[in-house]
Amino acid sequence: MLMKNNLKKVLSVTALSTMLFGTATGVTQNQNVSAEENEKGSEVKNVIFLVGDGMGPAYNTAYRYFKDDLDTMEMEETAFDPYLKGVQTVYSADPFHDGGEDDEKENIPDSAATATSMSSGVKTYNGAIAVDLEQQDTKTVLEQAKEQGMSTGLVATSQINHATPAAFGTHDKSRHNYDAIADDYYDDQVNGEHKVDVLLGGGTDYFERDDRNLAEEFQKDGYDYATTTKEMKKSSSDQILGLFAPVGLDKAIDRPKEQPSLEEMTSTALDKLSENEDGFFLMVEGSQIDWAGHDNDVVGAMSEMEDFEKAFQKVIEFAKEDEETLVVATADHSTGGMTIGEGGPYKWDPQTIRAAKKTPDYMAEQIVEEGKKVKTVLNKNIKFKLKEEELKAVQDAVEAEYDKEEDKLTEVDNQIEKIFNERSGTGWTTDGHTGVDVNVYAYGPQSEQFSGLIDNTDQAKNISKILENKKPENVSKVEEESVKKAGGIYPSSMLFGALFVGGGAFFAFRKRKTNQ
Amino acid sequence: MLMKNNLKKVLSVTALSTMLFGTATGVTQNQNVSAEENEKGSEVKNVIFLVGDGMGPAYNTAYRYFKDDLDTMEMEETAFDPYLKGVQTVYSADPFHDGGEDDEKENIPDSAATATSMSSGVKTYNGAIAVDLEQQDTKTVLEQAKEQGMSTGLVATSQINHATPAAFGTHDKSRHNYDAIADDYYDDQVNGEHKVDVLLGGGTDYFERDDRNLAEEFQKDGYDYATTTKEMKKSSSDQILGLFAPVGLDKAIDRPKEQPSLEEMTSTALDKLSENEDGFFLMVEGSQIDWAGHDNDVVGAMSEMEDFEKAFQKVIEFAKEDEETLVVATADHSTGGMTIGEGGPYKWDPQTIRAAKKTPDYMAEQIVEEGKKVKTVLNKNIKFKLKEEELKAVQDAVEAEYDKEEDKLTEVDNQIEKIFNERSGTGWTTDGHTGVDVNVYAYGPQSEQFSGLIDNTDQAKNISKILENKKPENVSKVEEESVKKAGGIYPSSMLFGALFVGGGAFFAFRKRKTNQ
Repeated sequence: MLMKNNLKKVLSVTALSTMLFGTATGVTQNQNVSAEENEKGSEVKNVIFLVGDGMGPAYNTAYRYFKDDLDTMEMEETAFDPYLKGVQTVYSADPFHDGGEDDEKENIPDSAATATSMSSGVKTYNGAIAVDLEQQDTKTVLEQAKEQGMSTGLVATSQINHATPAAFGTHDKSRHNYDAIADDYYDDQVNGEHKVDVLLGGGTDYFERDDRNLAEEFQKDGYDYATTTKEMKKSSSDQILGLFAPVGLDKAIDRPKEQPSLEEMTSTALDKLSENEDGFFLMVEGSQIDWAGHDNDVVGAMSEMEDFEKAFQKVIEFAKEDEETLVVATADHSTGGMTIGEGGPYKWDPQTIRAAKKTPDYMAEQIVEEGKKVKTVLNKNIKFKLKEEELKAVQDAVEAEYDKEEDKLTEVDNQIEKIFNERSGTGWTTDGHTGVDVNVYAYGPQSEQFSGLIDNTDQAKNISKILENKKPENVSKVEEESVKKAGGIYPSSMLFGALFVGGGAFFAFRKRKTNQ
Repeated sequence: MLMKNNLKKVLSVTALSTMLFGTATGVTQNQNVSAEENEKGSEVKNVIFLVGDGMGPAYNTAYRYFKDDLDTMEMEETAFDPYLKGVQTVYSADPFHDGGEDDEKENIPDSAATATSMSSGVKTYNGAIAVDLEQQDTKTVLEQAKEQGMSTGLVATSQINHATPAAFGTHDKSRHNYDAIADDYYDDQVNGEHKVDVLLGGGTDYFERDDRNLAEEFQKDGYDYATTTKEMKKSSSDQILGLFAPVGLDKAIDRPKEQPSLEEMTSTALDKLSENEDGFFLMVEGSQIDWAGHDNDVVGAMSEMEDFEKAFQKVIEFAKEDEETLVVATADHSTGGMTIGEGGPYKWDPQTIRAAKKTPDYMAEQIVEEGKKVKTVLNKNIKFKLKEEELKAVQDAVEAEYDKEEDKLTEVDNQIEKIFNERSGTGWTTDGHTGVDVNVYAYGPQSEQFSGLIDNTDQAKNISKILENKKPENVSKVEEESVKKAGGIYPSSMLFGALFVGGGAFFAFRKRKTNQ
């Protein structure tokens, strides 16, 4: 890694020297490492890590189809596309975990194991929240950032104590210990301070409990507490706990305005965290791409992709302005085995999905829980003419007898989802996860480190080293070590620098002192 | 593109200068652009383009699971993994094609449209063999190479007049005109010479017909003709037609030794083509990954992936030795909607697939066509103990009554495939294609041009420009143009060179004169 950093520095010097002599040499846009990025130098002040939970490669492509202007032959790019750097492997170490008699030895990962890999650089078992195979706490990049005096934030549309954010800010042997994980956000401190300055998502059920009220405890310690978009936007403290739903937020397409969008939460987080001159680490999760995938709900999946894309755009906008922010966006795994093509035809129809004004979940609740008529609800929320057999299938699900009352809601939901899956040509193979590699997008200084095929543990390893190199006391030390490791000595390196860099030598020296 | 090439040259100079002063500066391995590649310069003599037909991202990941040493926690890399550069979009222009009344307006592509995009840089309709939306012939990179005096080759495990190779070496308004496509290989010449020097694959049915014997015609013109591995290896002519099966070859795991592996055909092609000092263009297709996908046959899919991987390894070996060969490997689309996970469990079991000694196709033929006993055939070819219900399901398929006799073979095949799909946890959603983006791997000079998210038309556009820059008369012209385009003039560029490059200036100048 140190060697890589040195290569980056040589490239940076190239760019700087180029600037001295103008752009007449033709050093401009390159698909993967843009001159823009090079010219801005390699100094990382802030790191923003975005996770589209469940966002396998088919979701990325399907979303491009979904957004496509059908009148043009070209399929327009999504906001993610220009930043694609490569893909990452996502497998967990669950088969190597001794989980007792009923242990499934799963070799397809869950969100807890993958989030731990991405937060801590270790492979672990499914269900682990920032603990290793021996259930020992790992060190997360968020904790490292806090130790270094940076501000920290976690933003999600799930409850904020759900697997992905939890594996950055807490530790637990099981993702299912929701109360303990919520407690951990308050109790498990770094140098006497709370670990996470900005916590935005859902989860009042876990933070305002009969046995303990964490919202009050955080407020006593100076945090603002918000439960609506309005309250969040009014907040003036640098620290905030925002919980906008009992558990997860509603899906973007169903969300009332009292619940913020992922973009609004991200924007609030950026406003607060960027106050810190020592920089910040922020993790943003599009949590419910995964939930829609588990439900085999293509309407919800595209709606959540859009919510995530807008947050990503906001982050890119911030990073382009800031010039010292590394942005990495990826997924933890793919969910549902979604495919763009089902049953034979070479067709996938995005217009069918765009015709939905709400998710099937929402419509099913209106029918089953609010007692509204099938035809009324579907015609109001779906902008194509339903076939008689489609209406009948939903009506039959309403009228069927069920052993358990909740099965009715599930079955009505399934029948509405089926309309969109069949009409759009969306295939699904599981209500769980699949093992396929996922895309990696990155922008900003050091973003080239995330190129090619990497492992999910490389996310934490790379970020940890980038943070380590930020420490003022390490700038000269790291420099020295990198030269030693490469088998060189200062004099020949300096000779090389002087001969090679020419007019750029002064800049090279200055950058070496500050760029770590 | 010209500007990009210039950037590459600056980087090359960097590497050269580094060599002068040793490696003490730490400029070594970078994940995406290895120093090794830089040091070798940017000159491309040969281009090898490999297509894993149907090899969507789930195939690449599944194959890594398939090859994984289960005793180690790390999942070992496949031969492809180190060379991952990004992904490509694969959509066709079929919805913009006026195909008459029954036109399906498919927005998921077929292999003909995608191969045309990759060979010719245009979007076209499904079924098009190197013709555009107006059914006009396109110019393929293979034709361009031949015009420039390079040797050319096509290698496939399908019949050699199948969609992918056909779209590089022939033109037809429909992929289904197999005889006309075969004729085209002989009749449609470039400057009075046959377009393709090495044709290796299947297809005697189309080349040795009652109405025309193309094999004889090619032989009269100096081509060797081979129908077995042995004959192919004995061939001494620079030009060869090798057809090893009536239509497609057997799948790798079923293939008798009279039919060569994809690696053996590739090796023969490399031996012959590399005789040309002006370089060569070679397209190698792992054709039947797709066929296994259409069949929802995970055994066949992994077997064909292995066949393709070995050919890729052979090509990489050649390119590493040669140092002037650009290698690009990708897929045209994904087939079958294969997913690594089915029905809920977080498990995908490669051992089940490894237990097969032959494909389900082979076993079904043994049972239905050779009249062998179900139990005998399955127990001989599957290295796990079959459950009673698995044997029974196959037996029931044998005993069932069918309207058409060929349905029996299909149903017996389906029941055997089901054993592997269910035991391994492999999901499928279609017997057609899906629209997901596919991986791009590249190695050698100019390989960075294939980084990030690209479109399938960029394959031809990039390769065409790289070939164009090879033309001796264009080396100085291109150089001049690139400086003009960048708005610069020679003197300042030279000043920059002198100041910046220092001791590397002489090398820089020499490279600029020869590297295009």
